[in-house]
Amino acid sequence: MSTYVALDSSTVIDYLRQCEEVRAVFAPDEPLWAREVGDGNLNLVFQVYSQADPRRSLVVKQALPYVRCVGPSWPMTLERNRIEGEALQVEWAICPGRVPRLYRLDVPMALMVMENLEPHVIMRKGLIARKRYPRFAEHIGTFMAHTLFKTSDLYLDHATKKREVARFINPDLCKITEDLVFTHPYMEAEGNRWNRLLDPEVERLRADQALKDEIFWLKDQFMTRAQALIHGDLHTGSIMVTEDDTRVIDPEFAFYGPMGFDVGAVLGNLCLSYASHEGHTLDPDERCEYQEYLLGLVRAVWTVFEREFRRLWDEHPTPWPGGAYQDRYLLQLLRDSAGFGGCKMMRRVLGLAHVLDLDSIPDPATRARAESLALAIGQSWVRERESLASIDDLITLVRHARPAFPYD
Amino acid sequence: MSTYVALDSSTVIDYLRQCEEVRAVFAPDEPLWAREVGDGNLNLVFQVYSQADPRRSLVVKQALPYVRCVGPSWPMTLERNRIEGEALQVEWAICPGRVPRLYRLDVPMALMVMENLEPHVIMRKGLIARKRYPRFAEHIGTFMAHTLFKTSDLYLDHATKKREVARFINPDLCKITEDLVFTHPYMEAEGNRWNRLLDPEVERLRADQALKDEIFWLKDQFMTRAQALIHGDLHTGSIMVTEDDTRVIDPEFAFYGPMGFDVGAVLGNLCLSYASHEGHTLDPDERCEYQEYLLGLVRAVWTVFEREFRRLWDEHPTPWPGGAYQDRYLLQLLRDSAGFGGCKMMRRVLGLAHVLDLDSIPDPATRARAESLALAIGQSWVRERESLASIDDLITLVRHARPAFPYD
Repeated sequence: MSTYVALDSSTVIDYLRQCEEVRAVFAPDEPLWAREVGDGNLNLVFQVYSQADPRRSLVVKQALPYVRCVGPSWPMTLERNRIEGEALQVEWAICPGRVPRLYRLDVPMALMVMENLEPHVIMRKGLIARKRYPRFAEHIGTFMAHTLFKTSDLYLDHATKKREVARFINPDLCKITEDLVFTHPYMEAEGNRWNRLLDPEVERLRADQALKDEIFWLKDQFMTRAQALIHGDLHTGSIMVTEDDTRVIDPEFAFYGPMGFDVGAVLGNLCLSYASHEGHTLDPDERCEYQEYLLGLVRAVWTVFEREFRRLWDEHPTPWPGGAYQDRYLLQLLRDSAGFGGCKMMRRVLGLAHVLDLDSIPDPATRARAESLALAIGQSWVRERESLASIDDLITLVRHARPAFPYD
Repeated sequence: MSTYVALDSSTVIDYLRQCEEVRAVFAPDEPLWAREVGDGNLNLVFQVYSQADPRRSLVVKQALPYVRCVGPSWPMTLERNRIEGEALQVEWAICPGRVPRLYRLDVPMALMVMENLEPHVIMRKGLIARKRYPRFAEHIGTFMAHTLFKTSDLYLDHATKKREVARFINPDLCKITEDLVFTHPYMEAEGNRWNRLLDPEVERLRADQALKDEIFWLKDQFMTRAQALIHGDLHTGSIMVTEDDTRVIDPEFAFYGPMGFDVGAVLGNLCLSYASHEGHTLDPDERCEYQEYLLGLVRAVWTVFEREFRRLWDEHPTPWPGGAYQDRYLLQLLRDSAGFGGCKMMRRVLGLAHVLDLDSIPDPATRARAESLALAIGQSWVRERESLASIDDLITLVRHARPAFPYD
């Protein structure tokens, strides 16, 4: 097919029948059934099953030419589907098995046919349910170290890296981040949502020019620092897990940006969960135990990431120096991660897109306390990032953070 | 024409006869004469004159598919001619009259037809002759402020900026800078040249891991920081001057990189001239007076640059904050300029490409003293850059620098 048509749960089956690439999963004429399950803001997502054997299934993800949750009044380039497909190809080549297998990328149709991840769940939901994922830190730390190192100037030759920068220029999706993470939460902007109990704190943050200057500084880094092919949206809603497996999904925000934006997304979202358990887990011992588990994950994710990143650096014949230079590079990466992670925490309380971790706390005052804690952690990461010397320092900031709510 | 053929001083005239764009200068059939004057390392350059009226003339610059001074064994993309032509178009649109007027850009022929700048001279030669250029600081400071500000995220909308990054991806020419400025001078590398009297100092620098780490840090910034469309080679050999006029030429190294790389090139090359007058100007009063003139230029170039950059920022309705954020941005830009300028000074003593300022000092010991002073200034800029608070601090580093040669 060469012209774009949005599919539905009937035409998606017709489409798949023409795809050579899915023969490994479905026989040519076997009966299939499909359902649309997209709960995201941007795309159609179909799960397609063999009627005879529901263990054989696929996912078809198709971009719509507008923001789904808003409608055709907010157009959005179909190009993001090519970016997502090509990012999945790069990630699979570097870390096979850490992303869904891609069977077909159809650029004119803005469509991908992919592995259906079952029985995986969105990690965010698992964390809300206080589940534990013993392989997660090893998997995600390794995934980030390998994808970031191997798409950077530390690994690629100069010409390949620069061609990749051009291939992953992604203005529309970057613009969403530039606005929704770095700008709108700190001003009056259409779409901002917040718990009205936090009004005094929201007002204070919007008036805090020193904090806003730090966030603009990070926004500038986000817009100008073509360090590696980053996922660009690596929160716990973009990670699917089982006890044994971890998969990174949805890299449609991928572009050449600062490595710390991905690392910070993971660490920051673990700490959003940490803050949310102030509201979810009212028994203090139980809460404390799970929060300690989450801080252990924060430490483990960074530790694995750093260990793998250094190992790649030391093993790969790179012209870049090791030793003190490598130490400084990793320390700057930790500080960048704190800055970006802090921004990503705060915007989930102040801006358009919230997280279920916090939104699912029913009582507004309980929720305000957890949200205020998330704001306190995020602010401390942004403000104190250049004084961090280790991951323990970052964790100390989490432990010392106190919700400003309730206000005196 | 649509296939590449290298021209000579006869065929270049045939070529121009077919160009509609040059009718403003030459009549269709009038007799012309041409000479090849390229003294650079990469290109053919023809000056073409009307035989009847030599005040009417043009320049034709054509890229060769290899490095001219080495030969076909070092191939070099013709693409650089497109980059140079399109960069000239951008620069002319932003600062009309500060670059040569471009009459025609012929991408398949890798050729530009441009204004012939007469009676302009290469600024480097003027500085060797202790000439003064009363308009220079105003012109070049304004040129840099406008071209850098107006191609950055401070001015362009998010999508235009990102498309421009892709349009100016320039791997081959960037690679030359990555190697010749940031890498080869500090290792054994083919092509390195230096005054053998400096052997002990060269050895010491190559063993100085702390210094090399700083230079690798700056190399990483050069390779990853897509801040603005920079000229990329803005030394005093890329500037043509008269007493009244200043023109920036040869932007074939243009790409989206760190702003400080251009500003540092100008400041660093003024200080290469400063160091060279240790050798050229043996009368102490005369030397001192011209060196003071050069330091005055350093201050004036930065001061104009900063004034214009701030004016554009304040006058343009930008979403970026002013105030303390703008101060911090400019201070970081000064520090970046010091780092890059220092690298560019040192490589002119240690690496493949030298400058006439220093090379034209006939006596090896006198030259070694001037070169050692250039190394001292360059090192101090690289090492001390993060403690600079103003342009005066940068100038103080120049005043306090002492050549290590002669060695005890």
